[in-house]
Amino acid sequence: MVERLSDSQRGALAETLPDWNMVEGRDAIVRDFTFPDFVSAFGFMSQVALVAESMNHHPEWNNVYGNVSITLTTHDAGGLSALDVQLAQRIQALLG
Amino acid sequence: MVERLSDSQRGALAETLPDWNMVEGRDAIVRDFTFPDFVSAFGFMSQVALVAESMNHHPEWNNVYGNVSITLTTHDAGGLSALDVQLAQRIQALLG
Repeated sequence: MVERLSDSQRGALAETLPDWNMVEGRDAIVRDFTFPDFVSAFGFMSQVALVAESMNHHPEWNNVYGNVSITLTTHDAGGLSALDVQLAQRIQALLG
Repeated sequence: MVERLSDSQRGALAETLPDWNMVEGRDAIVRDFTFPDFVSAFGFMSQVALVAESMNHHPEWNNVYGNVSITLTTHDAGGLSALDVQLAQRIQALLG
């Protein structure tokens, strides 16, 4: 069972994941990514997909041409968990 | 320059693309696809991505685990064009 982040873990989010924002009305984080074109955007999505599947933790995301928006939350936990932080950090690592 | 669909072309949409619906408030069509898991859903998205790039006509889409929602419209035309119908038909063909 995955647990929701504690208050202290939440307090650290702004420092740990400075480029992510809380989603209004949900216990979830979101980040928008912009690429020059669809090939770059979908290439990035393919990388994220492989990481997500390997973690068995998947994003909610949408794509329009070079724009990708990724929302992370843990349905099993009813909100943000350490899995979301880990996936966000691995996504950050993909960006090099 | 891509032109918006004519009235008669629009009239044929219900027959040509029976599984697609008009988006409320937009000149766009949408269809939801459900797969058993993320691997299947993202595999489908990868197929659509290759087709879309080869047509230089890209979807607006989102994915949550096994669910994929695809919206088609032609920004250059300010609404639905023949490109959207073609892409929808090629997506249908991918489903076998």
